[in-house]
Amino acid sequence: MVSVEFAAKDAFRAVRRGDLIIVVDVLRCSSSIVNAFVNGVKAVVPAETLREAFALREQHSDYLLAGERRGRKLRGFDFGNSPWEFVQEAVDGRTLIMTTTSGTGALVRCRGAEHVLVGAFLNAEAVAKEAAAIAQRNELDVSFVLAGEKGLFSLEDFLCAGAIASGFPIGAFDFSDEALAAVLAFECAKNTLGESVRKSRHAKHLIELGFERDIEFSCMLNRFDLVPIYRDGKVTLMQ
Amino acid sequence: MVSVEFAAKDAFRAVRRGDLIIVVDVLRCSSSIVNAFVNGVKAVVPAETLREAFALREQHSDYLLAGERRGRKLRGFDFGNSPWEFVQEAVDGRTLIMTTTSGTGALVRCRGAEHVLVGAFLNAEAVAKEAAAIAQRNELDVSFVLAGEKGLFSLEDFLCAGAIASGFPIGAFDFSDEALAAVLAFECAKNTLGESVRKSRHAKHLIELGFERDIEFSCMLNRFDLVPIYRDGKVTLMQ
Repeated sequence: MVSVEFAAKDAFRAVRRGDLIIVVDVLRCSSSIVNAFVNGVKAVVPAETLREAFALREQHSDYLLAGERRGRKLRGFDFGNSPWEFVQEAVDGRTLIMTTTSGTGALVRCRGAEHVLVGAFLNAEAVAKEAAAIAQRNELDVSFVLAGEKGLFSLEDFLCAGAIASGFPIGAFDFSDEALAAVLAFECAKNTLGESVRKSRHAKHLIELGFERDIEFSCMLNRFDLVPIYRDGKVTLMQ
Repeated sequence: MVSVEFAAKDAFRAVRRGDLIIVVDVLRCSSSIVNAFVNGVKAVVPAETLREAFALREQHSDYLLAGERRGRKLRGFDFGNSPWEFVQEAVDGRTLIMTTTSGTGALVRCRGAEHVLVGAFLNAEAVAKEAAAIAQRNELDVSFVLAGEKGLFSLEDFLCAGAIASGFPIGAFDFSDEALAAVLAFECAKNTLGESVRKSRHAKHLIELGFERDIEFSCMLNRFDLVPIYRDGKVTLMQ
């Protein structure tokens, strides 16, 4: 079965079911993580709080700090949460400590699960392929955990779950009503993804803050063939 | 703003916002109510419990009993909950007491709202037109309350919310992420509505029980130009 939890606070259900979990936070945490790996990051350590992020940096002076609160880069941080910030010259071979309003918290809530992948439009097809292979090999069900914003349903994450689910091998899984709905919505939106996503609540907020470019970047579909995996407190690239 | 509450238990939010509410339970309560009015029913009184339904019948011996538990018609009832049961010879001029697992409860939860319409695929366009007119005239926001099944998200009700919302005058309302998603999913499914709905959890259950014909009937789009409205404890036809 392929299920979808619409809000990060319900991640525990996916963990309790023992599912392979795909965490989705298109705007912008998942997309930032994907692009960081594209540019050579070694690992991303999600931190739930600022205090935790700064404490990690104290312990590891070579780690870089990335993230946002209310959409904005934080004082003392090396990066905000715009995917395109993570260029090779800045991040190659480095470890990032990342703390965002929704996405990093969603990851941490899934720490009890054995397989937690990070999904975005940017790597939708790659995640679909890996998730399906792991789930079939281990006879697991699959759950999407949508980070949303403030615990609310978010259009862009829903569409991304649909993008990934539509890449699963046909007939390999039963789909919940939520997953069927996500696939239908994605099928309708896929050729005008940026346009559909720009109508979402969170995108409108980001546009107000001047982050329109982040939306364009994050809405590129199947651009990268890599799959970040969260395990033992950090995200690394699946080999 | 057009919002969508995915589960009937959250109807209170729509009531608290003071919204015009459209209650949707495609399989099968909304569709049954619509077809009952098509065939001349005078009023439908939703009852939450069997006890309440039988008490109403005690008081009004000319009322007819309709409804289901676990999908099946109940002992002592005149009708089950199949839309096509409510033929003119049986219901013309009569009042129905109706109690179903999800739909009638969803209606009753909305009793605190001033405008509560009953929406189905069968009357989607008519409901869109009436709801938009009332909301614009009274400067109200609109909420869909999806009955679902056992408090769960249901694909068919989500698609129906999309069907109705896509009939609102363009640009007249802002859409929440949920409403945007519903419209996208409906746009993708609209030409093969029965096929999409048959994949839903509740439809599969109804097919097992032998009610496949109810699904076909309920998936006819914009078949009837009438709008049932729930007010003062009963559903009547909007004039």
